[in-house]
Amino acid sequence: MIRMDAEDKTKTNSGPAHVLTMEDWDVSAIHALLEKAQYFADNPEKLPLQRLYAANLFFEPSTRTKISFEAAERNLGLDLLHFEADTSSVIKGESLYDTVKTLESIGADVVVIRHGRERFFDELRGHVNIPIINGGDGCGHHPTQSFLDLLTIRQEFGTFTNVNIVIAGDIYHSRVARSNLEVLERLGANVYVSGPKEWMSDELLQRYLPMDEAVEAADVMMMLRIQHERHTVKMVAGPDEYHKRFGLNEEKAARMKPGAVIMHPAPVNRNVELADALVESGRSRIFKQMKNGVFVRMAVLHYVLEKQKGWLDQ
Amino acid sequence: MIRMDAEDKTKTNSGPAHVLTMEDWDVSAIHALLEKAQYFADNPEKLPLQRLYAANLFFEPSTRTKISFEAAERNLGLDLLHFEADTSSVIKGESLYDTVKTLESIGADVVVIRHGRERFFDELRGHVNIPIINGGDGCGHHPTQSFLDLLTIRQEFGTFTNVNIVIAGDIYHSRVARSNLEVLERLGANVYVSGPKEWMSDELLQRYLPMDEAVEAADVMMMLRIQHERHTVKMVAGPDEYHKRFGLNEEKAARMKPGAVIMHPAPVNRNVELADALVESGRSRIFKQMKNGVFVRMAVLHYVLEKQKGWLDQ
Amino acid sequence: MIRMDAEDKTKTNSGPAHVLTMEDWDVSAIHALLEKAQYFADNPEKLPLQRLYAANLFFEPSTRTKISFEAAERNLGLDLLHFEADTSSVIKGESLYDTVKTLESIGADVVVIRHGRERFFDELRGHVNIPIINGGDGCGHHPTQSFLDLLTIRQEFGTFTNVNIVIAGDIYHSRVARSNLEVLERLGANVYVSGPKEWMSDELLQRYLPMDEAVEAADVMMMLRIQHERHTVKMVAGPDEYHKRFGLNEEKAARMKPGAVIMHPAPVNRNVELADALVESGRSRIFKQMKNGVFVRMAVLHYVLEKQKGWLDQ
Repeated sequence: MIRMDAEDKTKTNSGPAHVLTMEDWDVSAIHALLEKAQYFADNPEKLPLQRLYAANLFFEPSTRTKISFEAAERNLGLDLLHFEADTSSVIKGESLYDTVKTLESIGADVVVIRHGRERFFDELRGHVNIPIINGGDGCGHHPTQSFLDLLTIRQEFGTFTNVNIVIAGDIYHSRVARSNLEVLERLGANVYVSGPKEWMSDELLQRYLPMDEAVEAADVMMMLRIQHERHTVKMVAGPDEYHKRFGLNEEKAARMKPGAVIMHPAPVNRNVELADALVESGRSRIFKQMKNGVFVRMAVLHYVLEKQKGWLDQ
Repeated sequence: MIRMDAEDKTKTNSGPAHVLTMEDWDVSAIHALLEKAQYFADNPEKLPLQRLYAANLFFEPSTRTKISFEAAERNLGLDLLHFEADTSSVIKGESLYDTVKTLESIGADVVVIRHGRERFFDELRGHVNIPIINGGDGCGHHPTQSFLDLLTIRQEFGTFTNVNIVIAGDIYHSRVARSNLEVLERLGANVYVSGPKEWMSDELLQRYLPMDEAVEAADVMMMLRIQHERHTVKMVAGPDEYHKRFGLNEEKAARMKPGAVIMHPAPVNRNVELADALVESGRSRIFKQMKNGVFVRMAVLHYVLEKQKGWLDQ
Repeated sequence: MIRMDAEDKTKTNSGPAHVLTMEDWDVSAIHALLEKAQYFADNPEKLPLQRLYAANLFFEPSTRTKISFEAAERNLGLDLLHFEADTSSVIKGESLYDTVKTLESIGADVVVIRHGRERFFDELRGHVNIPIINGGDGCGHHPTQSFLDLLTIRQEFGTFTNVNIVIAGDIYHSRVARSNLEVLERLGANVYVSGPKEWMSDELLQRYLPMDEAVEAADVMMMLRIQHERHTVKMVAGPDEYHKRFGLNEEKAARMKPGAVIMHPAPVNRNVELADALVESGRSRIFKQMKNGVFVRMAVLHYVLEKQKGWLDQ
């Protein structure tokens, strides 16, 4: 290891060696420091520890997705660069592209991004050299949420073929839910929808089941979160009324088939789309979904880094 | 290690393997990813690193308690899940209970919570399967603060028996201080109070000492922080007046017994409850208290995890 | 390892061992916990892991500097204590000095500080026992930014002697730029300035070159960021006008010498001080500068900790 000149190069001759201003550094001390920096640049393999870095860029509130990615990253042994949107240069107007390029330059090996702008990734794909994982783009996509739903269903039934899945709630305004519908159908499941008819397109109405029929047909009741903030006008029914007409309550749950399960992406509006008592009932897989969220995110991270680095295969 | 299909499953055939939408994934690629996730679910012992996770949920401002817990956790080798109250789903209205269950599902092994609501933990105790450590509940309890005070006193005198302790300041409005009083008495100390009489209950007045007598009797002067924000009405005296009448200044400190010490939970209002010059004086144990805060938090974490996991005893 | 009494000392006899109130702890359990804490205090070498801690105190927005320090710290194997200015006791009025002393007491081995107050470090230097690294003090200094500029120039030309460097933009209002000018001259470079003359002092005007001459003379064009927020009054020219007259565009860049390079501290105002197309052009060293930022910060951290701890030399 290259040693710095042993003399203290700062004006303060006792105490710790602060680094405060350039004026404190004489020419030989500057050269010694540059030598050391160049040594670090030239000898990556001699760093005390060799790390892979993930940066999680969450421009919108999240508990479960952000922490779940963090747990997945740490479980795989990845290290974190802690990006905080609200104290970053983004508030000085820096673009998402420049922010990601910056993180790439600093050493991020993978970035996870949640952003309010739909398809935020279109300006990045093809222009950055590290993998981007979509942690949710506005009302658009949320692939790791889909993967965790899929894993939960597969664990339950061992297959997707002919599994009856009812997606209930505001599926029309949720592209995530429609994306789930599409992928479940591709995988062989029978997918139905339920909930307020005024929230359905004509296409969706072709697979519509009234709630009373839905609970009896379903192997999986996928309840959607009512996003109050987006429905002040539309939601003619209040929460109690909604719960009674379109929510899943204990009486309806009792009529579900043996082995049928309840799923929900959480956070649950208790006693709106789902009765409080059902959240942790035997039929519920809601907390299982959260556990599975960590495993699918590990798999997704592993997938992109394996391609990028041949990582874990050495 | 299970390998993903080597082909790039995303539409972009060059560059890194992003994960952006479900539409990019064909059925076989989906199944391969689910296989890998299931492998992670089934083989916890084959993870690259096996970790224990702590999550620190601080819903109120804190420097010393939060960072002290963090240092304690890292000292023990625990890993952190970084929960940030102000960007979490709590702002979407998620309950504390659901937040803690979520963290439990994601893999937290212990949670530390500071919350403005007194006895926030009553809704959690008995319903969650991971240990909760109270990092301060409003005006209620703050057990690790008590433990660090106790450790500091024990280091100084080797015992609590017959140690004379004066708690000075607004003890009536501070349940933490009253909790300290109670536990110190149980441990055998003689506990007195001082400060503005109008802030004392009749019960507290039975152990009242005027400041002039208090400084001569005390082995420990535990000065409390004046919480300006809570005393706009009550505090008839201004800061200078308070300092003169009820604060500990150099003249009074000079009359303390040999070996007597000054404690304060910090942050100190310098020259209000305590003279600036005394904060880092020979009698002060204020920074010692901070150091001890890390050690008692290590002990507390070790205690709850030992019970939970048989941890560190393997 | 000392074991706690195996009995559960909390009132709840089943489930995890929470730590919630002092009333839950009986005297023997308290003593057992204090024993354990004292054991940790007395036996630092028996901790599961022995760590060195860095704390990054950023009181002003930053992406690149903060994350760059974090990468440097993790690359060296340092651990982080996560200080968040906006949720810290600083908002209760705690001074910077007391905050740093607190971090020192809790176990920080080095602190990096960015603060809006110029020469914030004057109140700390000589009073704290851990090294302070200046991550930017208002309009004052930013030594690691200077070091990364220096490293980038040295990598390019192998020397500073007689390298022609043009600093272009609002150098008068940027003490960082003037500090760069001063140190580059001390290292043997020829330093010129360009940009709006009304932003130059008489002293700076002695080394003034019009932009058209500057691009032909320069080995390095160091473009400064126009800080819009500080120039509402002064900046008579709009962004387009500024770009045309004082910015570096493709036409001007084409007239630069073979081997000459473009630098910029970032974030870039694209098409103001620098044409969008030049940011990632062959002449640009902007992302190289970011990479070098990590290396010089590693060198700086290594330098201060080597002095403090004899670290890495064992």
